[in-house]
This record gives sequence, structure tokens and C-alpha cells, in this order.
Amino acid sequence: MKAWEKNIRKVVPYTPGEQPKERDVIKLNTNENPYPPSPKVLKAKLELERLRLYPDDKAKILVDALADYHNINADQLFVGVGSDDVLAMSFMTFFNSEKPIFFPDITYSFYDVWADLFKIPYRTKTLNDRFEIVAKDYYEANGGIIFPNPNAPTGLAVDLSFIKDILEHNQDVVVIVDEAYIDFGGMSALSLIHQYENLLIVRTYSKSRSLAGLRIGYAMGNSDLIKVLNDVKYSFNSYTLNYPSIVLAAESIKDDAYFKKTVEKVIHTREWFEKELTRLGFTYPKSSANFVFASHKTVPARKIFEAAKKEKIFVRFFDKPRIDNYLRISIGTDEDMKKLTEFLEKMVMM
Amino acid sequence: MKAWEKNIRKVVPYTPGEQPKERDVIKLNTNENPYPPSPKVLKAKLELERLRLYPDDKAKILVDALADYHNINADQLFVGVGSDDVLAMSFMTFFNSEKPIFFPDITYSFYDVWADLFKIPYRTKTLNDRFEIVAKDYYEANGGIIFPNPNAPTGLAVDLSFIKDILEHNQDVVVIVDEAYIDFGGMSALSLIHQYENLLIVRTYSKSRSLAGLRIGYAMGNSDLIKVLNDVKYSFNSYTLNYPSIVLAAESIKDDAYFKKTVEKVIHTREWFEKELTRLGFTYPKSSANFVFASHKTVPARKIFEAAKKEKIFVRFFDKPRIDNYLRISIGTDEDMKKLTEFLEKMVMM
Repeated sequence: MKAWEKNIRKVVPYTPGEQPKERDVIKLNTNENPYPPSPKVLKAKLELERLRLYPDDKAKILVDALADYHNINADQLFVGVGSDDVLAMSFMTFFNSEKPIFFPDITYSFYDVWADLFKIPYRTKTLNDRFEIVAKDYYEANGGIIFPNPNAPTGLAVDLSFIKDILEHNQDVVVIVDEAYIDFGGMSALSLIHQYENLLIVRTYSKSRSLAGLRIGYAMGNSDLIKVLNDVKYSFNSYTLNYPSIVLAAESIKDDAYFKKTVEKVIHTREWFEKELTRLGFTYPKSSANFVFASHKTVPARKIFEAAKKEKIFVRFFDKPRIDNYLRISIGTDEDMKKLTEFLEKMVMM
Repeated sequence: MKAWEKNIRKVVPYTPGEQPKERDVIKLNTNENPYPPSPKVLKAKLELERLRLYPDDKAKILVDALADYHNINADQLFVGVGSDDVLAMSFMTFFNSEKPIFFPDITYSFYDVWADLFKIPYRTKTLNDRFEIVAKDYYEANGGIIFPNPNAPTGLAVDLSFIKDILEHNQDVVVIVDEAYIDFGGMSALSLIHQYENLLIVRTYSKSRSLAGLRIGYAMGNSDLIKVLNDVKYSFNSYTLNYPSIVLAAESIKDDAYFKKTVEKVIHTREWFEKELTRLGFTYPKSSANFVFASHKTVPARKIFEAAKKEKIFVRFFDKPRIDNYLRISIGTDEDMKKLTEFLEKMVMM
């Protein structure tokens, strides 16, 4: 070991889904939207002169557009570099207790990475046999709660009464609902922020909004929560969002008809694909997201994953207990899913 | 206090320089470049289809362009959301000792904010009466060292023998040299990374490169240092740089002639402005940056600062011990500086 290595923070980093460099692949491994954003996004005019100046640290045009869209006040909104940045800042800000935070054992695999990075004690709560989150597991004293709705990689959503129940039992910690996939079929808990000041809702531009390339995420909650989150953000980096992203992200909010149309197309394709999966002998929890979490009765997930990759079809495989016979398959275009279905048909016939 | 507030991280955030919304101001308060970047930057073509996908987490085209430019390997380079992001990640990664880190008492005002945020013990070392960093103050056992070269807000640079001396006395901690302003007259310590594996050099696109609006910063050092920095980055946010910024930032490296010309113009204007300041009775340390740190023999800095603001001329005033009779004045265009000089002439005649 080198001398300076004694003093560094050692971590096991999160491994993002593979990003193949070739373009002729069917990419169903990172839950991106198969449809590009509205062409209006790139019509936004960028000024050379503005590039030399620091961007607006408050990203006012974006915050105002989102506040207007969600019918909340600008001071109830926090923006960051993708929901990962928003969530990392939220972990650092809100999960500062000596009691462990709680989250599901099968969930977004970044939560334990952030907890380790910031030295936050945590305990995972086991999903039941149907992969459902069990509310009463979260009644015990804790330092904070986070779960996605719908959950990932399972795709299962909870309803508002479930979230209210969690909140009623946890009034003295911050409860974060990660709504990365909410637009594909879940019921948002956004309306509850007016009633529960300890509730934070996190959203992303990377899934339903077709703008993973821009790195935009945001949080909504009581203005007191947003204020302390901003204090930590300003202690880390005053200018997290850059000028081109702010302009393009604000522009994208304007074309709501296009947004709704592409989300509906994804849902329609998912419903078709779920039927095909059933026909081929796969089981899966009913998805409310832009992916399906599927397992075959006889063919191992790892085998399908590896064979698919050879055919340049990328899906996600998690080599983890309980889920190592499942594949998380993003919903692509109809064409993508037809090709995948033909491939799966061959796999299960062998 | 609300119940959930018991468990949050409380910080005193960094206050960025004022960003006036009007465009008809003379803005000399945040050390931006008065000249826009090369027009070629906005010629870079953005593809709608790429926006729906996650950006390249390795920002390969940008890292390769920078590695080529600086004649180092890609694995000796780390990129982030402005040098603030790079520095915040570096504090988190490298300053993890129980011994205090050292930095000057008068320096970039974000250092103590990051130390507080990450609960890093620190001790500031007092600059001498000429505002110089004193090498032997850094010989004592410590958890790491950071200083800017040239220092901010003083503008004073140190030479390579000074940096070698610091490194020779500090072999078991990471030494960070923040070269945000190096292109305006300092001597870079970049060549020393081959000799000292514990040396990290940090640069920004926000000053000499006229691209504060893009939020790009980078670090250069031994590949082992860069690897652990990337491990922490991947534990925080896998995709920090967005697709438009990566493309535009890579493009900007290509027009080196334009870059050198604008940097020389800033230096030329600074030299003229320093003579004017002397003529008007100001004193200042000899600047190697794109700003001058000036004090008048009779007129208080605060008075000048406030009067200037009324005339829509923004400069930076720090209400802190030892420097509260100084103004940090960014170098603008010749026209900006002539208007400022006329204003200062009136102020000192009163």
C-alpha cells in the first residue's frame, strides 16, 4: 500500500449498466426511453455569449417550468444532475441519524452505495415472496426511509394508502419516494407533500422524458425540506446544472402532448410484451414501469442474458440472491420487442 | 424545531458571487472571461437521438481530447461538473485522515465549506504580510494539503521549487494544487505528476476557457490517484457530465489559437489596469490571474464596492478579517476596464 492510500475513502462503486459503443444493438438494459425527446428540445437557441458566464445557480427557467407543470411553488422544488445527484444530496442531507435508514432488500442498487459512501447506517427490509414491500417492516424506529415507487427492478407499484401508512408511522424522519418510473403507470404521492412536510418526491428526466443525456433530476417537497437540501447543495457545488441543459430541459416541458404520446406508446408495447412473455412461459410481477422483471420456468436467466448479448440484445441481469433468475428488460420500440420475442422464442424451444 | 430536523446535516453554505439578472452591467465579480469561447464550440452538432440515452459515463471524447492536449494518458485524467465538483470529490476521497488538512487562511472560500460538509478536520495557515504562502508552515504532520496557484483572491503565484519543497515534506498525504487561474501567468506543476504520485492538479473550463456556462473541470495525476477518485465518483453519480457539455467541451479544445489569443488579451488588459491602479493610489499583489486584488490608501474598499454597484459595476468584496479593505476585480474587456478606471478616478478624487 502506498503511503497516501492510508488516508483515502475506499468504496465499492456502483456499476452502471453496460453502455455498448456500437449503435446497431438492441439496448434494453438501462431503462432508457426508446423514443427521442420532442424535436422542439433541440430548437432551443444557445447563445455563445452566455457560455462564458456561470449558469443561473437557481436554474430559474427550469424550476419555474417544473413548478408550473406540477402546480407547486418554486421553493418546493430542487433540481440536480439526474435523480442520482438529487438522491445523493438527499442521503447526505437527511440521513444523518445514528439510527439505521430502511429500504427494501431488492431495490435500486445505488441506495446501499450512497449509504456506504456517506457512512450512513442502514438496514434492508426483505420484500415478501411476491416481491412486495411490507409496510409494517417500516414501523420500527429508524433514521429515514427510501423506496422507489414503482420499485426497481421489480416494477411493482404501491398505492397512496400504503405511502400514507408509512408516513403516519414515521413522522420524525424524512421519507423519500423515488418516482423515477411513476409516469408509466404508478400513482404519484406528490399531492401528499402538502399534508406531510417530511415527504420528499424524487423524479428524473432520464426515463419518461427521454432525456437521460441531459442529466436532470428533481425533488419536490415542503419548502423547509427543499431549503436544507439547497444548503447542502450550495456547500458542494453552487452551479451543478449547466446552461445548455437548463435551456433544453425547460424547453422539453412545453411539448406535453408529445411526452404523453410516447409514454402511452411504451405502456402499450409493455402490455403486448407481457402477453408474449406469458405465452413463452415467463412469469413476472405486473409492471407499472418501462421495464419487465421476468423469470422463465426452465431456462436460467443467466443463460438467456449471455445468449442475448451474443445477438447484440442487451438486457440487465443482477447476480444477486433471490433475483439471479430474473432479467430486467427495458421496453423498447415495437420492433425491438418483436426481435427480442423471436429470440426468446428460440431460447425457450431449445 | 421540527422532528425531522434532528436528523439532518446542517451547514453554512458557500455564497457564490452575485449574478445580476440584467445584461447592461459591468460584471467583474466572478472572474469569468470577458471573451466568449471560440464560435466553433456552438458548431458542434447535437443529435436528438443521443439525448434519450445516458451520456458516456467516461466522457471519452473529452478525456481523450484533454489527455492529448496535455500530453498525458487518459487514465491520468478525471472530469467533473466544474472544478468545484472535482474538488468536492477530491476532498471526500483523499482527505479522510484524523489529522487536519492544511490550507491558507486567505484562499478560495469553498475549502472550509467542503471540510465542514464532509466533517474533515482542518487548520488554516496564515499568509505572511505580503500575502505569500509560507512553505515551512506545511512541514508539520497533516491529513492533506490544498492551495490554489495562483492563489485566490490574492492573485499571487508560487514557482515550481516551492511546490517541490511542499511535496518533499509531504510524501504520505495527497497534495492538491488548484490551478483554476494558471493560464493567466503562473507556472503549472503538471510536469511534477510524473515524479510525485501524491500530487493532484485541478483545472477548470470556467476561467481561461470562457466556458463557465458548461460546468467542466478536471484533475490530472498519477493513474492510482485518478482511479480512487473515479471509485468515489461512481459511488456518487455515474453520469455527472451530460451529452451536450461533453460534445461542446471537446470541441473547444480544438481551437487553441483562439484560446491563446483571448488569454493574451486578458493579460495585456491586466497589465494596463495595474498601471492605472498604481496611478490612482491603489496597491495590489502582482497578479498572475485574471483578477487584481486591490486596496486603496485612503478610500475604504466597502465604500468603493457599494458605490460601484450603484453604477452597475460589480466587483467582489469579502467581509473577512485581513482582506476587508480589498476588492477582487476581474479583468474584463478594455472597455469595461476603462469605464471602471473612470469610476475609480472619481471615487479617489472625492
